[in-house]
Amino acid sequence: MPPIKIGLVGLGKIARDQHLPALGNNPDFELVAVASRNASLEGVADFASLEAMLDGAPELDAVALCTPPTVRHAQARLVLARGKHVLLEKPPGATLSEVEDLTRQAEVAGRTLFATWHSRHAPGVAPAREWLAAREIQRVEIQWKEDVRVWHPGQEWLWEPGGMGVFDPGINALSIVTGILPNAFFLREATLFVPENRQAPIAANLAFSDAAGAPIEAEFDFLQSGPQTWDIHVDTDAGRLTLSKGGSQLFIDGRLEHEAPEQEYPSLYTRFAELIGESRSEVDVAPLRHVADAFLLGRREVVEAFVET
Amino acid sequence: MPPIKIGLVGLGKIARDQHLPALGNNPDFELVAVASRNASLEGVADFASLEAMLDGAPELDAVALCTPPTVRHAQARLVLARGKHVLLEKPPGATLSEVEDLTRQAEVAGRTLFATWHSRHAPGVAPAREWLAAREIQRVEIQWKEDVRVWHPGQEWLWEPGGMGVFDPGINALSIVTGILPNAFFLREATLFVPENRQAPIAANLAFSDAAGAPIEAEFDFLQSGPQTWDIHVDTDAGRLTLSKGGSQLFIDGRLEHEAPEQEYPSLYTRFAELIGESRSEVDVAPLRHVADAFLLGRREVVEAFVET
Repeated sequence: MPPIKIGLVGLGKIARDQHLPALGNNPDFELVAVASRNASLEGVADFASLEAMLDGAPELDAVALCTPPTVRHAQARLVLARGKHVLLEKPPGATLSEVEDLTRQAEVAGRTLFATWHSRHAPGVAPAREWLAAREIQRVEIQWKEDVRVWHPGQEWLWEPGGMGVFDPGINALSIVTGILPNAFFLREATLFVPENRQAPIAANLAFSDAAGAPIEAEFDFLQSGPQTWDIHVDTDAGRLTLSKGGSQLFIDGRLEHEAPEQEYPSLYTRFAELIGESRSEVDVAPLRHVADAFLLGRREVVEAFVET
Repeated sequence: MPPIKIGLVGLGKIARDQHLPALGNNPDFELVAVASRNASLEGVADFASLEAMLDGAPELDAVALCTPPTVRHAQARLVLARGKHVLLEKPPGATLSEVEDLTRQAEVAGRTLFATWHSRHAPGVAPAREWLAAREIQRVEIQWKEDVRVWHPGQEWLWEPGGMGVFDPGINALSIVTGILPNAFFLREATLFVPENRQAPIAANLAFSDAAGAPIEAEFDFLQSGPQTWDIHVDTDAGRLTLSKGGSQLFIDGRLEHEAPEQEYPSLYTRFAELIGESRSEVDVAPLRHVADAFLLGRREVVEAFVET
C-alpha cells in the first residue's frame, strides 16, 4: 500500500515533541503538508491555515489536528467534508455535543475519525487490560499528582473555562482506567478545588463505583512537589495490579511484570493506519464524559489563589 | 392487547400531580403497585421499596421511576435486570455515564427504556418541528425565566451539587429546542451565575451555534418576578416561529397558529405504550449533554446569596 499522505495542523509543543517524530519513523505515513499561523517546517509544504492546506494539497488522505480543543470541531468537520480521515489530539472536543456530531459526520463522509487518548498507548496498558479481563475488581485507587509549574509552564489557558485545570492530566488517568477495567463505572461524588483567582480546578477528589459496586477513588493534584505520581492500583481476587509512571510500568503484587520504553505516539499512529486500512472509526468519549460528569455533579470548594511565579 | 401492568416508584409531587392522573385515564396501562418509603395509595398494592415491589408484584410489565435522579440508575438497572420496561422522569440520570449504561442494559435485557422529556409533549412542539423541518434557521432566542420561590418552594436539593439550579427548568427548554431544530447545535460560550452561598447556578447565559453557523442564544433566570417567560423564538427564511408558555402556544409571525390544553403526561404515556408495543427504546441524552457541556465549558460568576424566605 502506498503511504497515507497526511497533513498536520498546529505546530505547537505536542506536534513537535510527539507527532512529527512519530510520523517520521512510520513508513505508513508521508507528511506532505503542515498548517500553522506562524511556524513552518523545512522540507514540507506549509500553509497559513487549514483551508489553505486543503486547497493547496488536494492529494492529502488524512489530517492530524493538534490545535486547541475549542477550534477542533469546525476544523474536523471541514476535513471530513473534504473526504479526508481525521486524527484528533486529546481531548476530542471542547464539549461532548461536538464529539457526538463529529462521529456522525465521519459516518456520513465514510472516513476514519480517530479520537486519540495517548496514555492508552503506554506500554503497560494493554497487558493490564488482559490481566484484568478475567479478574473480579474489588477496589481501584488512582493517584495522579504532578507539579503544574514544571509540566505546564505559562499555559494560562488551562485555568480558563473549558481549560479543565487538573483534569487536563487527570483525563489521561481516566483514559487508562476506562481502557483497562472490565466494567463500566459511574461517578457518585466529587469535590473540585478551585483557586479563588481561577475558573478551573487545581485538585479534585472523585468517588466512582463500578457496575458491580466496587469503589474507584481518584485523587488529582496539580501542586505535587517532590516525586511525581501517576499511579493506578487495582485490587482484585487474584492480587493487586499497579500501573505506575503513567502506564509505563506494570506490577502484580509489587513485582515488576512489564516495562518498556515509552512509545505512545508511535503506537497511536500505527493504530491510525490500521483504522484507515479497516475503514473504521474509533471514538471513545468515556474519559471526557467522566470529566463532564465531574463538572456537573461535583461540589466546588474555593482554595488559595494560584499564581504561577 | 391486555393493559400493561405498571408499578410506580416515588410518590412525590410529580407522581401525584402528573403520573397518577395520566395513568388513570390511559386504558393501555393498569397501575398495580406503588413503592414509596412513607406514602401509600388507596386501592393499589403498596410496598416500602422497589425491591419489595419487584418481589411482591411479579406480574409487573413495567416500572415508572419518579425518584430523584441520584438513585435512579441503580433502580433502573435492577428493574431491567428483572425483565421489565422502564420509564424515567427527566433528567434521565445524575450523570451522562449512567444514562449511557442504562441504554446498554436495556439492549441486553431486550426491554424498553424510555427517558422522558415531558416538555417535548407540549402541544405546540410537534407542529413546530414539522414547520421548521424545511426552513433555513437564521437565529434562535430562548427565554426561560421563572420565579424559583413560586415554582420550587423548599426544594433545597436544587442548589446542591447535581441539583443543576436554574438548569432544572432550563433543561426543559433544551429538550424542546433539540426536539424541533433540524440541525444539531453546539455550545460556544456560557456564563453561570452562582449565588455565593450555593453550589448551583441561579441564572445562565448560553451561546450556541448550529451546524450551519446560526446563533442560538439562551437566557435562563430563576429570579423572574411578574410575568413568567418560557418562550422560544426561531427566525427563519419564512418568518418567525414562536413557541410560548412552555410550548403550549405556537405563533408564526405573531399569529397564533396552534393552541391546545396542556397534555404532556398523557401524551408521554401514550408514547411509552407505543414504544413497548414496538419493542423499542427512546433515550435522547442531548438535553442533559448540553447541560453537562455548560458546566464543563461555562465561566462561573459569583452573585448575591440566595435565601428563599
